Amino acid sequence: MTVAADGTGEKSEKRLSRDQRRERTAVAILAAARRLFAEHGYDRTTIRTVAAEVGVDPALVMQHFGAKERLFAAAVESTVDVSSLVHATTQELPAVALRHVFEGFEDVESRSSAEALLRNCLTHPEAMALLRDDVMGQTQAAVAATIGGDDAELRAAVLNACTLGITLARYLLEVPALADAGRDDLHRVLGPALQAIVTPVSEV
Amino acid sequence: MTVAADGTGEKSEKRLSRDQRRERTAVAILAAARRLFAEHGYDRTTIRTVAAEVGVDPALVMQHFGAKERLFAAAVESTVDVSSLVHATTQELPAVALRHVFEGFEDVESRSSAEALLRNCLTHPEAMALLRDDVMGQTQAAVAATIGGDDAELRAAVLNACTLGITLARYLLEVPALADAGRDDLHRVLGPALQAIVTPVSEV
Repeated sequence: MTVAADGTGEKSEKRLSRDQRRERTAVAILAAARRLFAEHGYDRTTIRTVAAEVGVDPALVMQHFGAKERLFAAAVESTVDVSSLVHATTQELPAVALRHVFEGFEDVESRSSAEALLRNCLTHPEAMALLRDDVMGQTQAAVAATIGGDDAELRAAVLNACTLGITLARYLLEVPALADAGRDDLHRVLGPALQAIVTPVSEV
Repeated sequence: MTVAADGTGEKSEKRLSRDQRRERTAVAILAAARRLFAEHGYDRTTIRTVAAEVGVDPALVMQHFGAKERLFAAAVESTVDVSSLVHATTQELPAVALRHVFEGFEDVESRSSAEALLRNCLTHPEAMALLRDDVMGQTQAAVAATIGGDDAELRAAVLNACTLGITLARYLLEVPALADAGRDDLHRVLGPALQAIVTPVSEV
């Protein structure tokens, strides 16, 4: 059974062009894929379960995305706004990095995409490569350019690793002290630490 | 086919008591389980594949460990030496925390156990609970007691989260800038940051 993604049924469905219907189906498939990859993990999510979630035929999912690997890549496509990192000064980097942590998981829109990627990054090579080379790689390059100096890449990678650890512990492992902490508390405790990471010793 | 775990064959096998042989089989099963859980993940590791790796009957693995959940728990049993954290001063905590990171993954003995736990911690509830409540929980309590003050638990949890992020990025995701960094470089870049985390602002 095919249902309209916005639940308005067949009447408005008929007013849409073929391309608009196609686009809307793709959006619904991606949303379902994000939820399932995030909740059940890569291995237990299949083209068939995604199709069932949307209420379409598996062949239609294949027509849109080909293989499961490509559906996964499309579902977790980076929502990291690197431009805010590019424009941040060294002094601003800690706050911008923490904002990315909060926005990635506390905005409903981006949470399932971020969670689908992170949930699978240690067990599935596709997710690992996407996280390391695309998401963390892009962020590292932007931050390293701001830091400058000999060990800019290492400092940027350490900043990335610490914010990754905070994200996993707070939102996926749900360590109580971190899950219950307010944003202000995390800014207060992490701010000086992240500042130390992005500030080469010669500039202290 | 049953083989002696140390490869010395049947002759020395006969000199062992029944309890010694039983103990040696358990050690071999655990070592194989660690390798397989670390390499293939929880879902794709079974009592059957572990038994095949050791060269024993699956029934023998069941006899020793019962279910797969119990085999996993025994295989990843914490090797974190919390006593060194208990005895560390606030000034010593960053170096001790980093030593745990290096020793957990750079010593052959503990690597497969640590990797089996971390590799599965985002996709398997058993691994997640063990990491959060046992390994990270124990560490957090020891570090919080040293830090003291109102936000000691939060600071200890943040220290844990950052060292977790560094461990994952360096050894599992293998982010190049971190995987290639020497221990001294990591001490230099991370030391001041970890110090800031464990030092309440009032003491600065």
